[in-house]
Amino acid sequence: MSERTITIGAAQMGPVQAGDARKPVVERMVALMRRAKERGCHLVVYPQLALTTYFPLLYMEDQEEIDGFFETRMPGPDTQPLFDAAARFGIGFYLGYGEIAGEGEHRHRYNSAVLVDGTGGIVSKYRKVHLPGHADHRPAQPFQQLEKRYFEVGDLGFPVARSMGGNIGLCLCNDRHWPETYRVMALQGVELVLLGYNTTLSDTAGRETPETRSFQNALSMQAGAFHNSAWVVGVAKAGREEGVNMMGGSLIAAPTGEIVAQAETLGDELVVATCDLGARDHYKATLFNFAKHRRIEHYRMIAERTAAPEA
Amino acid sequence: MSERTITIGAAQMGPVQAGDARKPVVERMVALMRRAKERGCHLVVYPQLALTTYFPLLYMEDQEEIDGFFETRMPGPDTQPLFDAAARFGIGFYLGYGEIAGEGEHRHRYNSAVLVDGTGGIVSKYRKVHLPGHADHRPAQPFQQLEKRYFEVGDLGFPVARSMGGNIGLCLCNDRHWPETYRVMALQGVELVLLGYNTTLSDTAGRETPETRSFQNALSMQAGAFHNSAWVVGVAKAGREEGVNMMGGSLIAAPTGEIVAQAETLGDELVVATCDLGARDHYKATLFNFAKHRRIEHYRMIAERTAAPEA
Repeated sequence: MSERTITIGAAQMGPVQAGDARKPVVERMVALMRRAKERGCHLVVYPQLALTTYFPLLYMEDQEEIDGFFETRMPGPDTQPLFDAAARFGIGFYLGYGEIAGEGEHRHRYNSAVLVDGTGGIVSKYRKVHLPGHADHRPAQPFQQLEKRYFEVGDLGFPVARSMGGNIGLCLCNDRHWPETYRVMALQGVELVLLGYNTTLSDTAGRETPETRSFQNALSMQAGAFHNSAWVVGVAKAGREEGVNMMGGSLIAAPTGEIVAQAETLGDELVVATCDLGARDHYKATLFNFAKHRRIEHYRMIAERTAAPEA
Repeated sequence: MSERTITIGAAQMGPVQAGDARKPVVERMVALMRRAKERGCHLVVYPQLALTTYFPLLYMEDQEEIDGFFETRMPGPDTQPLFDAAARFGIGFYLGYGEIAGEGEHRHRYNSAVLVDGTGGIVSKYRKVHLPGHADHRPAQPFQQLEKRYFEVGDLGFPVARSMGGNIGLCLCNDRHWPETYRVMALQGVELVLLGYNTTLSDTAGRETPETRSFQNALSMQAGAFHNSAWVVGVAKAGREEGVNMMGGSLIAAPTGEIVAQAETLGDELVVATCDLGARDHYKATLFNFAKHRRIEHYRMIAERTAAPEA
């Protein structure tokens, strides 16, 4: 191992229902952080939309009802205990949440994440770019996937911040299936990618098996780790939310692409690994020395063309 | 299954040594094609540099000696039997080979592949973009990896051709570890990616294990398949060449990312799968509907920046 290690707790969470208040959820999160402290963690990673149920499963029209799943301030009164605990324990954390930015007619709603360091201060923020699903109500489906209804596309790119001794990148859920996510971070020197997710065990069309979807969940994060010589920490909110089964499988993948730790339950569970940020150096010097091997003159289509022309 | 199926034979080859003539090698390849015909294949995929040993393992200075591993015409007298067999069997094939293009001072050398259809005609050609290794002699290493010495970077992009009922893309070996390879093809509508490889079981620094390298070989192709809703056929030249152990593991991966067939030996072995080109349609309509979900405004760095700035 090199000198540059960081011990990370992937704080998987069991389900949260639509009627649940923030307070008991935040108490569960503080309990996970306390466990992380006992296990020597420097950083705790929570899921996407950690504070509420995964509400894009639900069709809602009433904007006030919808806004009840969002935070207008971070920290706000409900989330301040997390920030206080971080400062008390000297532990950083990643938190996914629904963000309302701006006021009145200039309100914008994002699926966001913040990175907080061990002083309890926000050091980086991300607004989700790859929103899955649809914007319209589809009552024939067993459940909805309405991220495109409730959120705007993020406007902060894929941020990488220097914090806690490493270059840390933030993304969310569906971003993991898009190689561009990790690559844009890698081109900013990312060493550690943090990713919360909420993923249903079946798809809205009922065509995919839980086994294949769970395999794909890991595949994407493992490939993102290997191809970008980065650690990837993916953390689920798992179990049955609002009648829909959500995948667990929270994991920590090394720059080799190999999984070094993975959750075994569908509940609140802390998965810990000590991550050597120097484990990437061998790959960055050889196979994935970007300066020597990338050929950007052949990549232009990736940023110029959204999709293949219709045949 | 949809109506659009193609039966493919991944024609893994055992070793070829530096002193071996083309004739017996081509005879082995024709024998594999005959087996493929018997098993109902429409297309046979051979390895990278299929006709010779994987000569970038060897340091050579004599240009005439080096050029002995290249073809100046395709088909040429040595390879014509392959084209004749293809026409006779009505089977297409993918062939990796060292290409000399041009004459005299305008000679260029590429690590190339051609796609030939069931009439024996060349329908597409690729020159390798991601050349691994180094250009200088490194005698302290257990073996050399001199693709950067013997080849120029390809100048044909990542081609996708309509042939044999599908959109077929060509790439080679190390290209599989670069997500850009598959993505540029996907943006041209690729349905089937063909890839020959020659990969040592250990790295030149002796730091990686055969198990991890074999895992990464599959990981990259599986991720490329899933993220681009394409079939990927990866075919090795395997076994011990010039004293160096080469990986086998030739495989066919579905658009789900799952491996449907894989080689079990390190010798000449035909791995067959019937690939439903319609298997991708579900993903292209949902998770990987590029027109709905890709956000190219956030991808510019991929084509503008070769590597992260030095810290």
